[in-house]
Amino acid sequence: MPSQSQHSEFELIARFFTPSPPGPDAGVALGVGDDCTLLVPSAGRQLAVSVDTSVAGVHYPDDAPAEAVGHRALAVSLSDLAAMGARPRWCLMALVLAEADEGWLEGFSRGFRALAEASGVALVGGDVTRGTTSIGVTVMGELLPGGALTRSGGRQGDLIAVTGALGGGAGGLALWQRGERDLRHPLLSRYLLPQPRLAAGEALVGLASAAIDVSDGLVADLGHLLEGSGVGATLEPEALPLAEGLVEALGEEGARQAALTGGDDYELLLTLSPAGLDEARTRLVALGLPLTVIGRLEAEPGLRGVEDQGEGGWQHFHGRSSRGGSP
Amino acid sequence: MPSQSQHSEFELIARFFTPSPPGPDAGVALGVGDDCTLLVPSAGRQLAVSVDTSVAGVHYPDDAPAEAVGHRALAVSLSDLAAMGARPRWCLMALVLAEADEGWLEGFSRGFRALAEASGVALVGGDVTRGTTSIGVTVMGELLPGGALTRSGGRQGDLIAVTGALGGGAGGLALWQRGERDLRHPLLSRYLLPQPRLAAGEALVGLASAAIDVSDGLVADLGHLLEGSGVGATLEPEALPLAEGLVEALGEEGARQAALTGGDDYELLLTLSPAGLDEARTRLVALGLPLTVIGRLEAEPGLRGVEDQGEGGWQHFHGRSSRGGSP
Repeated sequence: MPSQSQHSEFELIARFFTPSPPGPDAGVALGVGDDCTLLVPSAGRQLAVSVDTSVAGVHYPDDAPAEAVGHRALAVSLSDLAAMGARPRWCLMALVLAEADEGWLEGFSRGFRALAEASGVALVGGDVTRGTTSIGVTVMGELLPGGALTRSGGRQGDLIAVTGALGGGAGGLALWQRGERDLRHPLLSRYLLPQPRLAAGEALVGLASAAIDVSDGLVADLGHLLEGSGVGATLEPEALPLAEGLVEALGEEGARQAALTGGDDYELLLTLSPAGLDEARTRLVALGLPLTVIGRLEAEPGLRGVEDQGEGGWQHFHGRSSRGGSP
Repeated sequence: MPSQSQHSEFELIARFFTPSPPGPDAGVALGVGDDCTLLVPSAGRQLAVSVDTSVAGVHYPDDAPAEAVGHRALAVSLSDLAAMGARPRWCLMALVLAEADEGWLEGFSRGFRALAEASGVALVGGDVTRGTTSIGVTVMGELLPGGALTRSGGRQGDLIAVTGALGGGAGGLALWQRGERDLRHPLLSRYLLPQPRLAAGEALVGLASAAIDVSDGLVADLGHLLEGSGVGATLEPEALPLAEGLVEALGEEGARQAALTGGDDYELLLTLSPAGLDEARTRLVALGLPLTVIGRLEAEPGLRGVEDQGEGGWQHFHGRSSRGGSP
């Protein structure tokens, strides 16, 4: 039999991370509590899967509110489903904790669950271990074969567009570092409580030729899309939609730089034929989300319209800042 | 465009963790390199999923060989598929690294890949971030509806049996702590290079009434099974199959204790009707694996035949040792 101290840990885990019994539509044949969870994939669908890890002090401030940490850890993974146009179904969480602080766990769990519920994704598995705090979230979504928004479908002449606004992640980080702690500030909210563009991704299936989410920064992520599609592009930096409050926080030049190379925006960067722009905008307006054209794909490789961004965009191991998305 | 230093990280990741293009039978419609991987679930199958995290200094020694760390991180997750009787299909790895040491990565990758290949599981996604080293592995397997070996199917009168031998995990840890470093030693091999009993799990579908893998220790894991099945049991401790070299390493009493409460064995603990024993043994003999009866399920709750194991079995946060399985 598990010892008393084991029970206390298992109860702690059970309290915060055992999901409510999934509904009949959740596609869960056997929930948490056995060696594996058993899922029922929808007939005729493909499964989109991705994993992202959030490390305290690397991806989010050590002293970020627990609720934001839980929200954000799930959001960055869901953003990958959004960028494929997949419908979120299930997620698993691998939580490494320095200590079992009940207050922290309560907040973390609340943030995670609220976003899971809002996104229609069921938490179906988890693992809690002791160590330096990090959160790995695996997400699984479904889509029709051929429906995925990949990075490789962009074609010469396609428009480059972005949902929502850019620079909020970098602006929010800057404010946090200056001591701002009110999550109602639009930039802090953008940074710590990013909204994965799931409905937008699904709405763009069949319209966007390629898509990626802006996690490493616009220039870096556009680079991935251009590489995947085998094309080049010209950007119109003056067209970039700037996050609310960004110019006030960082000044004109800082705001432009944040929008170009800041990470953690989790907007969708997509390409589409000019003929599809009106329809795409109509679909996104219904979601309360603007779509801004910021450039055009061209046959000639390379990125034009912006000066060399040098060390812009965050990356791991050699990164110059303390935040970033997944590679 | 990603900066030079970004390229160096991406190249490092690409070199070690981008899988070879999956074969036509791998069920991968779109491999690594986009926001998500696209998988093609088999028609009419359920999906068994699980995640486990291995933390350096908690689940394996800080100075364990990189190849063993890679093998072991995958093995402990695959063991959960084995315990459900699922056929392994895909896995994703969330790797957190304190530093990007190419030699370590090379060894880690070799150990991970070798076991993946031997197990028929395709690495279809990953994430590498900076932080205190830990490895989270999500595994996905398939099985027919109704075929899963759960923890809840055990019935009064069923035999309790275990594959292979017990105590090797604890014995290997003890040897490692005494300075033994030769992985050819059978106990060290059991501890650092555990073999998930995948073929055995699949072979037992339709025969075993319940199953769990021995990760936290026999007594603790049997406790989970009894709880899940709503029954009790009497164990025959003298029947426990002891790992090769265990008595020499730990003495008679230490060996018995290791087999009862040591973790990290990754054998299958199962229950089955007495009428099915011969058939189960025949199927496992074909896999070179003995099956030993060690007790019997009874209606009366509780575990009899062993004295109170007190703090036996490892657990997180309150654990008294530096190893353990997943909760």
